Amino acid sequence: MRVYGDVQSGNCYKVKLLMALLQIEHQWQAVDILAGDTKTPEFLAKNANGKIPLVELDDGRLLAESNAILGYFAADTALMPSDKFQEAKVYEWLFFEQYSHEPFVAVARFIQHYLGMPAARLAEYESLQAGGNKALSIMEQQLTKTHFLVGDSLTIADIALYAYTHVAGQGGFDLNRYPHIQAWCQRIAQQPHYVALG
Amino acid sequence: MRVYGDVQSGNCYKVKLLMALLQIEHQWQAVDILAGDTKTPEFLAKNANGKIPLVELDDGRLLAESNAILGYFAADTALMPSDKFQEAKVYEWLFFEQYSHEPFVAVARFIQHYLGMPAARLAEYESLQAGGNKALSIMEQQLTKTHFLVGDSLTIADIALYAYTHVAGQGGFDLNRYPHIQAWCQRIAQQPHYVALG
Ligand SMILES: N[C@@H](CCC(=O)N[C@@H](CS)C(=O)NCC(=O)O)C(=O)O
Ligand SMILES: N[C@@H](CCC(=O)N[C@@H](CS)C(=O)NCC(=O)O)C(=O)O
Repeated sequence: MRVYGDVQSGNCYKVKLLMALLQIEHQWQAVDILAGDTKTPEFLAKNANGKIPLVELDDGRLLAESNAILGYFAADTALMPSDKFQEAKVYEWLFFEQYSHEPFVAVARFIQHYLGMPAARLAEYESLQAGGNKALSIMEQQLTKTHFLVGDSLTIADIALYAYTHVAGQGGFDLNRYPHIQAWCQRIAQQPHYVALG
Repeated sequence: MRVYGDVQSGNCYKVKLLMALLQIEHQWQAVDILAGDTKTPEFLAKNANGKIPLVELDDGRLLAESNAILGYFAADTALMPSDKFQEAKVYEWLFFEQYSHEPFVAVARFIQHYLGMPAARLAEYESLQAGGNKALSIMEQQLTKTHFLVGDSLTIADIALYAYTHVAGQGGFDLNRYPHIQAWCQRIAQQPHYVALG
């Protein structure tokens, strides 16, 4: 199996972390977005949306969307609850991540950490802070009640939200305001076979 | 079971259409976003993210995120493939919808159809057209190969993408450019127990 990704990207890191925790063997294929690797005819034939991460199974089948990849590989492992309603709560967090968290936290981090805060994107950067803090507050609220986002054991909801949350400081978010998130981040970093972003 | 929703909202319509197709009895609780119904302490206690749709089961358990709701109720029905890889492809489309389709198509529709194209949001409206057409092109490409988005039978991937796609014209998107999408929309509208948006 091959994973097309960029080790700096949180969406790709989700897949890298999942495969490390589950000890799934794979070949990592580095993709350079800025060099245009996701816009070649060869890559677009694999994923018409031109995005990474992308997984190519040994038989050639292809799967995109970080959170769909997490769901596929977590099935029948401890990272996905067997109870159907709890599984739906995991997906609730995964969709929350893509709609209400990543577009704020990841984009602010990109503008600050990768682009170095260009003047042309300062207003956008400022406008992302409220949405990012709202998402972090919602996580904080849940983590006062349970050790992980869905109950008291680690699921792919935690892996998906961890990817950009633990580096939210690089997007201007102050994690000191969210003590339960900080403790949760430490619990994740202590998992056996954990790998760091980058 | 109670569904909190607004019949004009595509995200809520997904749930309404699913429940109609599967003939799932439920009580529809109308929520008026503009009147502040999603920002009351009572509603925020049910969904801290302050968004609809939201499902409340008879035992009080709560589930938000339209696409997580679809996944929960479609499990073990014909609307979700039993094959695990095909199920992952359904989720790939559901995450594509939330990340690469809805933020363009639904927001452009909101600005044009509900706000009546205020000058202050015209630049944003224009900027959404490219992303919306890219998403529609990706769907069109798939629908030249299969009758529905994941293979040749209807799944919740179709329900989720149909919600805003069939009214994309209200956001300035010309569906005449996408003949396979148009035929697919007709196939969906012909399903037994289909209900229209609104
Ligand atoms: N919804 C997608 C988002 C993936 C995404 O935005 N990937 C970025 C890198 S973090 C990318 O490939 N960008 C290239 C582009 O969009 O052209 C997922 O979760 O996998
Ligand atoms: N990702 C959510 C999006 C839901 C959403 O944005 N709902 C809108 C109505 S279409 C809403 O409740 N807006 C109120 C608000 O955000 O304050 C889902 O798919 O359910």
